[in-house]
Amino acid sequence: MTRLRVYLAGPDVFLPAADAAAVSLAKRQLCAAHGFVGVSPVDNEIDTSGMPKHQAALCISAANEKMMRGCDLAIANLTPFRGPSADVGTVYELGFMRALGKPVFGYSTQDGTLLERTRQALGGEAAQGPSGEWEDSFRMVVENFDCVDNLMLVGAVEAGGAHIVVVPAPAERRFTDLAGFELCLKLAAQKLVAPQPQAAARA
Amino acid sequence: MTRLRVYLAGPDVFLPAADAAAVSLAKRQLCAAHGFVGVSPVDNEIDTSGMPKHQAALCISAANEKMMRGCDLAIANLTPFRGPSADVGTVYELGFMRALGKPVFGYSTQDGTLLERTRQALGGEAAQGPSGEWEDSFRMVVENFDCVDNLMLVGAVEAGGAHIVVVPAPAERRFTDLAGFELCLKLAAQKLVAPQPQAAARA
Repeated sequence: MTRLRVYLAGPDVFLPAADAAAVSLAKRQLCAAHGFVGVSPVDNEIDTSGMPKHQAALCISAANEKMMRGCDLAIANLTPFRGPSADVGTVYELGFMRALGKPVFGYSTQDGTLLERTRQALGGEAAQGPSGEWEDSFRMVVENFDCVDNLMLVGAVEAGGAHIVVVPAPAERRFTDLAGFELCLKLAAQKLVAPQPQAAARA
Repeated sequence: MTRLRVYLAGPDVFLPAADAAAVSLAKRQLCAAHGFVGVSPVDNEIDTSGMPKHQAALCISAANEKMMRGCDLAIANLTPFRGPSADVGTVYELGFMRALGKPVFGYSTQDGTLLERTRQALGGEAAQGPSGEWEDSFRMVVENFDCVDNLMLVGAVEAGGAHIVVVPAPAERRFTDLAGFELCLKLAAQKLVAPQPQAAARA
């Protein structure tokens, strides 16, 4: 049976190089243990040495898009990154895979709603408008849909019948803890991998 | 000639309702003036009244995805939103349209690179690692590719032969100024709209 290829999206790419490689390896090992092949942009072999920075950026972007097109699903690390929401590069990839009709899964190590985290990030800048909705100093409303992040992200994952998996982790493991990632793999296996004949017979 | 439909992505949806409607109208009028039809999620007619919030979120997400599929290109307001990067909902939509092979354009009212804005946002938390790269308190590197935002966003726009248009605006017009939006329309018209016979004869 051909194993499905999982695109491993996340801000993990910004970890110190040794840690990024270790997380990528651990994720690929977990993928294998659950019947998938993990594919990480960290392991994209593109040589950008000597290139102007901007050209290197375009090369990496093109390589990542090509890698995504060669995958069957994505598991995205949606842990809030330098703000109340997920990393924008990861979110771009979530939308990309979703548009291709490929199932997307997501996890976060931070609990709470987008509203709670945004209010905290805004601090004294947050205020309630006449309708009771929270606003920032530009009077722009803070999304309040009882969701862990922006509704487009939540909708993408839930459209496939899954949910964004939240497994809180302490700060020192915020971007390396893989408990939520492994739960995503289990969800993906349940939804996408046909039971083996023997297992089907037992069901 | 059938006019191309432009999906109007941006955090504009979070403006106070009257302002969001006014910006949507202004954008649609500019689209018409440049030979396009503007289509905004602000004008999505979906009745979520009485729905639990989470269900409403899923309805809006599904409606926006359907609207995107019905458009031919996107112009995204990539102005940094509550942090150094663009709004995640907008970025999701950028990736979505790009994966569908539809040209994406983007503009911002804030200049500077992602590195500069992220260092400013991190404040004293930013530090230079041994290699000279800037890191946050998690030792996660700050992307430094001389780009205005994450390389996936830049790559998406430049893959179509355009660039992210930056026209600085004062704080009070940060999310409503449309100079950059109109430049995107001009770029889109140049790249996507065939010259009229008369114009072609002059060329």
